[in-house]
Amino acid sequence: MKGQVNISKATIDRLPLYFRTLRLAQDEGIDIISSDELGRRLGITPEQIRKDLASFGQFGKKGVGYYVNELKRNVGEILGLNNHWNIAVVGIGHLGAALANYQNFVTLGFNLVALFDQDPNVIGTTVNHVKVEDIRDMKKIVKERNIHIGIIAVPAAFAQGVADKLVDAGVKGIWNFAPIKMEVPETMHIVNEDLSIGLSSLSYHITRK
Amino acid sequence: MKGQVNISKATIDRLPLYFRTLRLAQDEGIDIISSDELGRRLGITPEQIRKDLASFGQFGKKGVGYYVNELKRNVGEILGLNNHWNIAVVGIGHLGAALANYQNFVTLGFNLVALFDQDPNVIGTTVNHVKVEDIRDMKKIVKERNIHIGIIAVPAAFAQGVADKLVDAGVKGIWNFAPIKMEVPETMHIVNEDLSIGLSSLSYHITRK
Repeated sequence: MKGQVNISKATIDRLPLYFRTLRLAQDEGIDIISSDELGRRLGITPEQIRKDLASFGQFGKKGVGYYVNELKRNVGEILGLNNHWNIAVVGIGHLGAALANYQNFVTLGFNLVALFDQDPNVIGTTVNHVKVEDIRDMKKIVKERNIHIGIIAVPAAFAQGVADKLVDAGVKGIWNFAPIKMEVPETMHIVNEDLSIGLSSLSYHITRK
Repeated sequence: MKGQVNISKATIDRLPLYFRTLRLAQDEGIDIISSDELGRRLGITPEQIRKDLASFGQFGKKGVGYYVNELKRNVGEILGLNNHWNIAVVGIGHLGAALANYQNFVTLGFNLVALFDQDPNVIGTTVNHVKVEDIRDMKKIVKERNIHIGIIAVPAAFAQGVADKLVDAGVKGIWNFAPIKMEVPETMHIVNEDLSIGLSSLSYHITRK
C-alpha cells in the first residue's frame, strides 16, 4: 500500500468512517457487504465507496461484495491501526478523563500509557488505571514510554504551550481538542477536533425537517 | 435557501468545517478570503469549495474572494445555527460534564437548558450553572423548556433506552456519543459521534511519515 500517491484528503477522511461501519457490521455478524449497503449506511454513493477503496488496492469481488473481516483488516492497516500507537492525554479535566476512559480507543488498538496535568490536586490520582503525572516530567516520560501521540485536552489558553512541549518531547502527532489555531512545525501532524461539527450537522438536518 | 434539493451528504458534512474555518479567520481579523486560501486551510480543493457554496446561492465576488463575515453568517444560516436550539445532555459522567462545559456550543448559539442523570448522587448537582435533574422527569422538562436536541453521553448499555425516552419526549434530533447502532424512527434525525475517527485519521498520517 505504500508508494500510493494523490489520495485526496476527502478519501482519507472517509476511511475511519468505513472502518467504523465495517466494525459495526462485524458486530452484527455480517460476513459480506455490498457497496450499495455500505453506501446506505454511510450516506455516501456506492460509486464513491468503490472509487475510494480502489485507490488503495483490489478489495471485494464483483457482484458479491466485500468480505467484512478482510476489508476491515485492510482498512485498519491503511489507517495504521496495526501499529498499536502509544497515546497520552494532557489535561485531566472532564474532557481528558472522558478520553482516558473512552473504550473505543482500546478496540482500535491504541494504548493509553500516560496522563499529564499541572494541578497538584490532580497529579497522583488515577484514571482508568493510569496515574496522572506532572506535566513538567512530560519530556522524560514521552521518551521512556515511547509515546507517539499526544492528546491536548487543556483549556484554550494553555493549549499552545502544551503543543510546544509535545513537539519538543518528540511525539509524532497531536490530537487537539482546544478550539484554537495551533502553531506547530510543518513536519508535525496535528488533527484539530471540533465537537461542535456534529451538533452543527444535526442543526442543518432538523432545520430542514 | 429552502427548496434546494440534491445536496450531497459530503457537501453538508463540509459546511460545519467551512463555518469553523471562517470563524477562525474572523477571529484573526481577516475580512476577505479566497477559495484558494480556504482550500489551503481545509485541505479541500478550491474547485470543491466553490462548487459546495454555489449549491446554496451566490456568495463571494469573482477575483476578490469571499467576505468572511457575510459568508460565515450565510453558512451559519444554512446550518440553521440562527435557530438558537435548546439542548440537553443526558448522562453527566466525565463526557457529559465536558459537553456541558464546552464553550463552542455557546459561540454557535446553542442554549444548554437541561442536564439529566439517573444517579441520585449526581441529581441535584450543578454543572456550568445548570442543575442535573432526574431522567424520569425528562418528558415533562423537554416540553416545558422546549428542548430541541438531546445529547446522549451515557454508557452504551443505557443508550438505546435514553434514545427511546428522547423520541417519546418529542425532541427533533439526537446527538449520540455511545458507540452503538441506535434504533430510532426514520423521521428522527440522529448524528452518531465517534471520537476515534479523529485519532484514526492521525494514525493514517503518522504511519506514512
